[in-house]
Amino acid sequence: MPRVCVIPGDGIGQEVIPAAVRVLQAAVPGLETIQAEAGWGCFLERGTAVPPETLAAIRECGAALFGAVSSPAKKVAGYRSAILTLRQELDLYANLRPVRSLPRVSPRGGIDLLVVRENTEGLYVGRERLEDGGETAIAERVITRRASRRLAERALALMHGAGRRRLTIVHKANVLPLTDGLFRDTVREAVVRATRAGQAVEVEELLVDVAALKLASEPERFDVIITTNLFGDILSDEASSWCGGLGLAPSINLGEGVALAEPVHGSAPDIAGQGIANPIAAILSAALLARHAWSMEDSARRIEQAVERALEDGLPHGTEAITRSVTGNLCVGEN
Amino acid sequence: MPRVCVIPGDGIGQEVIPAAVRVLQAAVPGLETIQAEAGWGCFLERGTAVPPETLAAIRECGAALFGAVSSPAKKVAGYRSAILTLRQELDLYANLRPVRSLPRVSPRGGIDLLVVRENTEGLYVGRERLEDGGETAIAERVITRRASRRLAERALALMHGAGRRRLTIVHKANVLPLTDGLFRDTVREAVVRATRAGQAVEVEELLVDVAALKLASEPERFDVIITTNLFGDILSDEASSWCGGLGLAPSINLGEGVALAEPVHGSAPDIAGQGIANPIAAILSAALLARHAWSMEDSARRIEQAVERALEDGLPHGTEAITRSVTGNLCVGEN
Ligand SMILES: CC(C)[C@H](C(=O)O)[C@@H](O)C(=O)O
Ligand SMILES: CC(C)[C@H](C(=O)O)[C@@H](O)C(=O)O
Repeated sequence: MPRVCVIPGDGIGQEVIPAAVRVLQAAVPGLETIQAEAGWGCFLERGTAVPPETLAAIRECGAALFGAVSSPAKKVAGYRSAILTLRQELDLYANLRPVRSLPRVSPRGGIDLLVVRENTEGLYVGRERLEDGGETAIAERVITRRASRRLAERALALMHGAGRRRLTIVHKANVLPLTDGLFRDTVREAVVRATRAGQAVEVEELLVDVAALKLASEPERFDVIITTNLFGDILSDEASSWCGGLGLAPSINLGEGVALAEPVHGSAPDIAGQGIANPIAAILSAALLARHAWSMEDSARRIEQAVERALEDGLPHGTEAITRSVTGNLCVGEN
Repeated sequence: MPRVCVIPGDGIGQEVIPAAVRVLQAAVPGLETIQAEAGWGCFLERGTAVPPETLAAIRECGAALFGAVSSPAKKVAGYRSAILTLRQELDLYANLRPVRSLPRVSPRGGIDLLVVRENTEGLYVGRERLEDGGETAIAERVITRRASRRLAERALALMHGAGRRRLTIVHKANVLPLTDGLFRDTVREAVVRATRAGQAVEVEELLVDVAALKLASEPERFDVIITTNLFGDILSDEASSWCGGLGLAPSINLGEGVALAEPVHGSAPDIAGQGIANPIAAILSAALLARHAWSMEDSARRIEQAVERALEDGLPHGTEAITRSVTGNLCVGEN
């Protein structure tokens, strides 16, 4: 029986995650849940943003649904964003961010793309230093063949499973020939191996600036985008404007035998506690968990279709009403 | 009398730059021109992409109009993109990329923003190395107080001159606290000094991922965006979708006593030599030269208004016909 570690976190995470769990339980009968803590509130109470029990619970379940965490306005000693710690500790090396046109809320139809973002290295390695008495700051951007390779292999396996054929490698190798050259060449080699093994893949490359423009002007042209950590961060946020904004954008972080789904949005302290947060991004993230953690494609589709029907009906106001509309449409799907 | 060093470069640079020079000469009577070489063609002929005479000519004129350069598909020893060499050698530390809604061609009206991009450091310093026998590649991202400060001061001076009040600092200090913290704090300090000196500035900060999303969904909200080198590269390309794409996006690189204007687009070898390239981006770049190199605001406005009228008329086909439409509308403006 599948189990999920539920980590609402801070702010609206406390509202949208319980909503998503209700939908997930309706779509995956018998699902067990374990509650766990993480985030800024947890740091204030317990002195750590990610307690060891939380890590242990996620590892045990192999699957987690994470809400959002707040960060202090000023740097606080010992505090690091919980999501970065989770990605690192659990070695969640691939971040999937699908963007699809959704009824009524998307500015355009016909978009169905997936950003596959490297999730462990690049500028996220935390290697920064000061020089010249603080006049100069230097950050290291680290790209390894190993991380690029496992990312590419995961992306290709996913494409195979989903019938996706077109892969766009996004990099800036004209300015960063060694780091982005390594990334690009490693992905290309994985594509060659997959092609030899019989998979049909069309591969192309785009410079990250050109990709940002094309994502704004011709989003329909994209199928799967594979890129390094920070480029993926930027491009997936940009792309999420096409599904109707962050309130509707799901994501999932994948490691080996462990997956953590999270809405792309943050903890939105300005609207927290009012029951008005949109739970759709969290619900769609729960669907990604069904698909990628438990290979329950049917349950994933049922959740996604219920969301689409709810959007077609016109979303009511408030977290509770939206959740009821989605669960109601889930039942419709059962006949 | 103003002088301009004209560097068409490769591909469609050879077509759009002569067109832009004609318009510039019509708007700035008595303008002198000096021709110079740079780019891939130049590298093949002379073994250098930026000959010393070209640098000398630009320095002497204090102003250059640059087209575009091609790059070889594979890395070639000794070759570096001419534009990167020019920015570095001439210490062109501020790259201005204005994006405005244009009649008929822009998907939306009401947009008038300016990206001010740091142009000398960040990930563009060329400090990359391999480790672990090529298994790991590392790039250094360098941010200095000096470069951040002169950029901020230039941006604030420009804002003062142009009556722009709202400054958005774009960074990723939640992940890069030292480098982007230094950039952000230095810009903030410059704002405090400007405010004390009586300038009205509203300042805000956005994380680069959030900025990419807002630029896609609420472009009207932006006035001036100030950011580091690669973020500026990505965001300005993204933003150019709002003026109607790269064929319409101008830019200018500013140093001390020297300015180099260039269309944001590349050399487009696929359409080069056919007389079909759109010269508008080059013409609008020439207008930026009038404004920023020679403080000829009237001439700059006249060129921009002529472009707008030509767009309102409906652009004819071909470089020559578009150029004639713009010069024709320039004369109209004289009455
Ligand atoms: C909160 C932040 C550290 C994080 C990131 O940059 O990865 C967020 O923007 C995301 O995309 O999940
Ligand atoms: C050609 C390339 C090196 C350059 C850059 O990255 O700066 C271009 O994209 C630009 O924006 O002018």
